[in-house]
Amino acid sequence: MIIITKPGVTDAQLEHIVDRIHEWGLKTEVSRGELRVVIGVIGPEDVIREKPIAAIPGVESVTPVLKAYKLVAYEFRGMRSVVKVGDVPVGGEALAIMAGPCSVESREQILSIAKIARDGGAKILRGGAFKPRTSPYTFQGLGKLGLELLAEARQETGLPVITEVMDTKDLDMVAEYADCLQVGARNMQNFSLLKEVGRSRLPVMLKRGMSATIKDLLMSAEYILSEGNFNVLLCERGIRTFETMTRNTLDLNAIPVLKAETHLPVVVDPTHGIGLREHVTTMALASVAAGADALMVEVHNSPELAKSDGEQALLPAEFNDLVQRVRAVAQAVGRSV
Amino acid sequence: MIIITKPGVTDAQLEHIVDRIHEWGLKTEVSRGELRVVIGVIGPEDVIREKPIAAIPGVESVTPVLKAYKLVAYEFRGMRSVVKVGDVPVGGEALAIMAGPCSVESREQILSIAKIARDGGAKILRGGAFKPRTSPYTFQGLGKLGLELLAEARQETGLPVITEVMDTKDLDMVAEYADCLQVGARNMQNFSLLKEVGRSRLPVMLKRGMSATIKDLLMSAEYILSEGNFNVLLCERGIRTFETMTRNTLDLNAIPVLKAETHLPVVVDPTHGIGLREHVTTMALASVAAGADALMVEVHNSPELAKSDGEQALLPAEFNDLVQRVRAVAQAVGRSV
Amino acid sequence: MIIITKPGVTDAQLEHIVDRIHEWGLKTEVSRGELRVVIGVIGPEDVIREKPIAAIPGVESVTPVLKAYKLVAYEFRGMRSVVKVGDVPVGGEALAIMAGPCSVESREQILSIAKIARDGGAKILRGGAFKPRTSPYTFQGLGKLGLELLAEARQETGLPVITEVMDTKDLDMVAEYADCLQVGARNMQNFSLLKEVGRSRLPVMLKRGMSATIKDLLMSAEYILSEGNFNVLLCERGIRTFETMTRNTLDLNAIPVLKAETHLPVVVDPTHGIGLREHVTTMALASVAAGADALMVEVHNSPELAKSDGEQALLPAEFNDLVQRVRAVAQAVGRSV
Amino acid sequence: MIIITKPGVTDAQLEHIVDRIHEWGLKTEVSRGELRVVIGVIGPEDVIREKPIAAIPGVESVTPVLKAYKLVAYEFRGMRSVVKVGDVPVGGEALAIMAGPCSVESREQILSIAKIARDGGAKILRGGAFKPRTSPYTFQGLGKLGLELLAEARQETGLPVITEVMDTKDLDMVAEYADCLQVGARNMQNFSLLKEVGRSRLPVMLKRGMSATIKDLLMSAEYILSEGNFNVLLCERGIRTFETMTRNTLDLNAIPVLKAETHLPVVVDPTHGIGLREHVTTMALASVAAGADALMVEVHNSPELAKSDGEQALLPAEFNDLVQRVRAVAQAVGRSV
Repeated sequence: MIIITKPGVTDAQLEHIVDRIHEWGLKTEVSRGELRVVIGVIGPEDVIREKPIAAIPGVESVTPVLKAYKLVAYEFRGMRSVVKVGDVPVGGEALAIMAGPCSVESREQILSIAKIARDGGAKILRGGAFKPRTSPYTFQGLGKLGLELLAEARQETGLPVITEVMDTKDLDMVAEYADCLQVGARNMQNFSLLKEVGRSRLPVMLKRGMSATIKDLLMSAEYILSEGNFNVLLCERGIRTFETMTRNTLDLNAIPVLKAETHLPVVVDPTHGIGLREHVTTMALASVAAGADALMVEVHNSPELAKSDGEQALLPAEFNDLVQRVRAVAQAVGRSV
Repeated sequence: MIIITKPGVTDAQLEHIVDRIHEWGLKTEVSRGELRVVIGVIGPEDVIREKPIAAIPGVESVTPVLKAYKLVAYEFRGMRSVVKVGDVPVGGEALAIMAGPCSVESREQILSIAKIARDGGAKILRGGAFKPRTSPYTFQGLGKLGLELLAEARQETGLPVITEVMDTKDLDMVAEYADCLQVGARNMQNFSLLKEVGRSRLPVMLKRGMSATIKDLLMSAEYILSEGNFNVLLCERGIRTFETMTRNTLDLNAIPVLKAETHLPVVVDPTHGIGLREHVTTMALASVAAGADALMVEVHNSPELAKSDGEQALLPAEFNDLVQRVRAVAQAVGRSV
Repeated sequence: MIIITKPGVTDAQLEHIVDRIHEWGLKTEVSRGELRVVIGVIGPEDVIREKPIAAIPGVESVTPVLKAYKLVAYEFRGMRSVVKVGDVPVGGEALAIMAGPCSVESREQILSIAKIARDGGAKILRGGAFKPRTSPYTFQGLGKLGLELLAEARQETGLPVITEVMDTKDLDMVAEYADCLQVGARNMQNFSLLKEVGRSRLPVMLKRGMSATIKDLLMSAEYILSEGNFNVLLCERGIRTFETMTRNTLDLNAIPVLKAETHLPVVVDPTHGIGLREHVTTMALASVAAGADALMVEVHNSPELAKSDGEQALLPAEFNDLVQRVRAVAQAVGRSV
Repeated sequence: MIIITKPGVTDAQLEHIVDRIHEWGLKTEVSRGELRVVIGVIGPEDVIREKPIAAIPGVESVTPVLKAYKLVAYEFRGMRSVVKVGDVPVGGEALAIMAGPCSVESREQILSIAKIARDGGAKILRGGAFKPRTSPYTFQGLGKLGLELLAEARQETGLPVITEVMDTKDLDMVAEYADCLQVGARNMQNFSLLKEVGRSRLPVMLKRGMSATIKDLLMSAEYILSEGNFNVLLCERGIRTFETMTRNTLDLNAIPVLKAETHLPVVVDPTHGIGLREHVTTMALASVAAGADALMVEVHNSPELAKSDGEQALLPAEFNDLVQRVRAVAQAVGRSV
């Protein structure tokens, strides 16, 4: 931790700052510049990090030397993690493709799309039973029935299932049916939910919040790991910027940064990221070139009748085309599909 | 709803679009331009809004005519709402000041700060018992003990209490002690929590999420009202932008816009908004000039020992000064404190 | 300057970093932590700032101790500057109001609006002769004729004139007519123009760019001062965020921060800031409460016939009302109008 | 153009709106809803676009039906444009790689890096002689000498040269030496400069501003084409968001959107986009997968001695590696290098 004082800090202020730090059991190293004083704080940074040093009179800025995340840090493992969803490994040499509808709408719908997904090359089935919707007046998901239908689709196709859990009170129910829990972008800092899924045995896919920095995402993942669950996937799904021609700004810069910072596998969701059906495949290719370990895409056999997000779902033929083209790019960067 | 087609839409596509709309029980009015066709859709917009019209081939854009929020809209009441927290009205001619520490830390701390707040002119006591913290390794709040201490502080000072609820499973416990429930910025789109607080009898203060548009905030409030709870306060607390010299960008533009769009009272939290103690009072003055109905500010008698956010809390003397200066500006804009 | 190394930096890398710094004539102070090494760099920070230290292998981050701006820094003068536009002081106890149309459109238009502005309480006349427009197909300003009409309006009303200069090649012509040069938001980092206006004898109002941090704004002002022109006004006019209900997000947080960081006066333009006529006055009041030294507002006697930005211009009666209400808030914060 | 009125618009207001539109020589089609009235405006949209319709009392919103750009629109040509820089085509099947140092620093530096670039596979040499720098105290470029050295490097290597022009007064000089003019991100809305380069015979690469929407970029390009110069390249180089771990957020979503909206070729600058040397190559691969027609990358043989942006420049070996890996991805998406 490095403390820089305000210009013209008084000796009394300086002494007070140093005394506070010593009270907390840490050592200091003071270098006086012409205008400001630089104080190095030596000792376990965790102890210091929580202290409101910036509140001490005379302090201008406080710069941590170490990062606030530990268990998720690449250095913690020193190698990439592979997380298994059902028996599908995510994070290894092979890319995993997750596909399915935005929402489970009916038995027929989910069974037919599940087969389309599997036949097209998907390894994991996605589908929402609990849906976070901006408006209370739109379709909120089938709930328990949706979970049962997902389980039936898994039975039929052999694909493990990922589905969203929106609230701690639903967790046991969702966990009974799912192979992987999804925590949505809007709940990325729902810390109660993060702690609970951290106590689950199931893998968790954590989506980046719309205004979450990469560091925020890693700190939220740290909540899950710190409860004992190391089976975490991080998902880039677009951030909110000033641009209005795309639904979100899929931030592919996050992929190489995340892969340097953490050992956890990185999933990309181009469907929500760009939000325009005709460009989903292009963004999927770019995601793979950027190093994504998995893709999550929405597929629907009748988008114009979908109960949510129909305008961004791929048609079955488009999904098949996506997988073919993804395969070529994956090979070009030393991966397989 | 107005649909604009892509240039070169075919007759078959156009017919298909119109047929779909008729299937949904709505009428259409078609105007052909040189390049594009404009289709007016006539009928209850709620029915149409949920349909994935943009997914129909040939559609370029879809523009709603009506707004998606109803119960929160100014027109719904045609007058400003006054929400009572305990017996303190928020939203009338008199500004309400909410003050207190970021977190409840100890009996002595909350009792002494509560008195400082009351004596300085606060009408409502704030204090967190459940704390949403970015890092799992920092102070997470005293939980139930914190709630009990808040109740004791209310007993001692007569101030009603506002405190955050982070999860549906804690709601009953928090509701037992609080006079007003706070839903934090990170939970603004935790729709499960919104529905549950919508079923509560207590007033709810909903904070704007860091990347929430004004419309998103109103839609989240709509969730609460649609469950039957009309006692909702909206709180502007800063949005996330590229600026790094302030913690957030307190968006005072939201105040006049909200007051035109909704009947609900508007609270401003300048403490989190700018995040710099020396500028909190200035932003409080600006908030009042912009039309805020209430202010929420953090006060601490020993910020450099605070367990959270010490660097932005006002000292008691600073809080007293804030109230004096706020009073002058309030009078200048026809309000009182 | 403080350098933090990557974890696992080698001795050879460390030696190389230190050698480089010594070559540049500076001293180092090395503290070894468990994982990383912290290197304090001692000597004139200007010499170091330009060096690509982050490019040296083994370096993780570089933190400057001093700020990059000097002449604009508050400490440079130790008191607030007052800049005179014609004989109107900006930055003292009295608020200065600048008003006028977006564009000069005709002799009759500018003369009549100039009188309305003066009679309503404006001290400086604004009006564009060269207009930066997003589209090449919209009105681009009257050019030299516009400048002549502004001079005539000054003659008639006694109000000094502020008008925009868009290009170095127009500077001499604009300077012949104007009392204050405006550099627009889109040219805030047009460094060639900044240097040229820095060589002018006229005061310059520099508008904050749509995506400029407060630091960027100060660095651009530093360009002007470093050429010898200290008569600079800084203007907050809204930044670009994700919010779409307002044209821009007027960032009032910038006012107290600027007033702490720099001695230069701060102008606020609520018209462009929020971009909605019905809310301009409210934002003007908030600007004054936040400490603005001057306001710039657009006024038009026939907005629906204006050649640019009619939808945000105040009507004459609205402008008169604004001045009355601003006066009350100014008095409440110890200023006058 | 579609006008939607405010709820409760009066008959007199409605009549006034319609009269205004008729005065401008256009026709109207009025549909009354329950709360609002929808007015379709029929006639040449260009005439209407400039009118301040939103300033007319009773108007709530105005939605254009047509896009504001014409010459840059894909429909204008109906096929992709190929722009020649020297004799290198940009926009065809083959990707063009532009490489070189951030700044021209010395004869030896530019000649050696130019050879490295050419030998590594670059087709165009980049290098700045006029440098837009945030601080007036940092290296501002060699000016005319820099241009002469670039010409010499072209002579030696056969590579055509792209270099930045920052001001209209420098244009003739830069045009004498350059094969392609670069307009930088900070000048994207320097409309005077856009008009002047529009009158040049040289191709122009226009970089997207840090806070420019895709539409803004297209409108700025429209300025150049509207002056008669159709040889324009658009360059995505990162936008400004809240993320701080990367220098900018390279917005690859812009690539497919631009390629659908315009016939102009699209260049990507991953160096400035992510700003971190170790991730430039990854972002280059993603750019190619997203459909980029050309890449611009910074290369330096001694980054830690570079006079600008050394921390993001690739070393020669890294550049060679980038070209190899880009070639593989290009082939995977049906392009060549």
